[in-house]
Amino acid sequence: MLHDIALLAAVTLVGVLEQAFFALQVIASRRKYSVSPPKTTGPPEFERVFRAQINCFEYFPLFLAVLWLAGIFFHQGTASICGLLYLVARYYYFQGYSVSPKERLGPMYLSAGILWLLIGLSAIGILHELLLHYLDFKLM
Amino acid sequence: MLHDIALLAAVTLVGVLEQAFFALQVIASRRKYSVSPPKTTGPPEFERVFRAQINCFEYFPLFLAVLWLAGIFFHQGTASICGLLYLVARYYYFQGYSVSPKERLGPMYLSAGILWLLIGLSAIGILHELLLHYLDFKLM
Amino acid sequence: MLHDIALLAAVTLVGVLEQAFFALQVIASRRKYSVSPPKTTGPPEFERVFRAQINCFEYFPLFLAVLWLAGIFFHQGTASICGLLYLVARYYYFQGYSVSPKERLGPMYLSAGILWLLIGLSAIGILHELLLHYLDFKLM
Repeated sequence: MLHDIALLAAVTLVGVLEQAFFALQVIASRRKYSVSPPKTTGPPEFERVFRAQINCFEYFPLFLAVLWLAGIFFHQGTASICGLLYLVARYYYFQGYSVSPKERLGPMYLSAGILWLLIGLSAIGILHELLLHYLDFKLM
Repeated sequence: MLHDIALLAAVTLVGVLEQAFFALQVIASRRKYSVSPPKTTGPPEFERVFRAQINCFEYFPLFLAVLWLAGIFFHQGTASICGLLYLVARYYYFQGYSVSPKERLGPMYLSAGILWLLIGLSAIGILHELLLHYLDFKLM
Repeated sequence: MLHDIALLAAVTLVGVLEQAFFALQVIASRRKYSVSPPKTTGPPEFERVFRAQINCFEYFPLFLAVLWLAGIFFHQGTASICGLLYLVARYYYFQGYSVSPKERLGPMYLSAGILWLLIGLSAIGILHELLLHYLDFKLM
């Protein structure tokens, strides 16, 4: 049923909007510091914003994968709350990185921690399903 | 049922083939301009093709996310047509960028517009499902 | 049913863990060769590890897309085995690239071959479903 994935879908959409926001920030930074494509190097202010966006984009597929695995195999509500927290952490990561590489560290560790939590929840849920189906063994 | 997602699956597969095509173009460009990995800088002709591919790859997860959200929560046929148009726009973006950064702008705006359309359709569909399920309120 | 996608989910999770491992290797390499973010250039040893990770991350969404398409529209077990082989090939790709660009070539061709196989299986499965549903024609 659709309502079994509607919260995951909503978090995914918020995530897409956040990535779009990051991409627009890079465009603004390109204009501000006159760094025309295809160039990707320039003043440190630009390079930090650029790297922040790249990093968030790189991790987005990993995030979506574990958000949906945890939401489908473990619990939709729990996964969705973790997902929202991850997106908040990424927002502060981006803002922090724009200021200095050091400022990104706190939110970076937070977002990594949430990813590991989603990985753990996914692992429990998938293991439970595999044991139940192939060995008829109930984990929980 | 599988036929509820078969068109989305077909568009996704066409998208994967397009990304593979872009990746092969970069390999050809590396050979033509003698830019051996791990180097990513070289003559502007190479750097434009390289950046075009990176940009298409970066946006591919966002595109897939909203294609499937719009297709599942709004309407499969509408989302699939938007998806095909996006892939066509990306083809012209890649070809344009290979010629000059300016030539990429038209298809870039078109592909961004289609992404925003898919985001809008997803938002309507997901909101409709959430309101229906949690508040028993019919949006449409 | 969940067990129809549990193997795909398990392979996806292994893939996420592999990407996390690659990311940690880059962090270790940044420390070893003193390449602080947002810098992405440095000694060739660092640049090879960095490029290896980027390449694996770039292809991860394409891999997930065809893993799931092949698993849902063709056959879950076959797709999952291909998926595991792909992840093994990517591990040797990463290790090889860390040593020299040449050492990455064998696993690179292997992983590309597996991707094409998954693309082929997806195409057969999706075509079968589309013909069956829209033309009432049985391909297999």
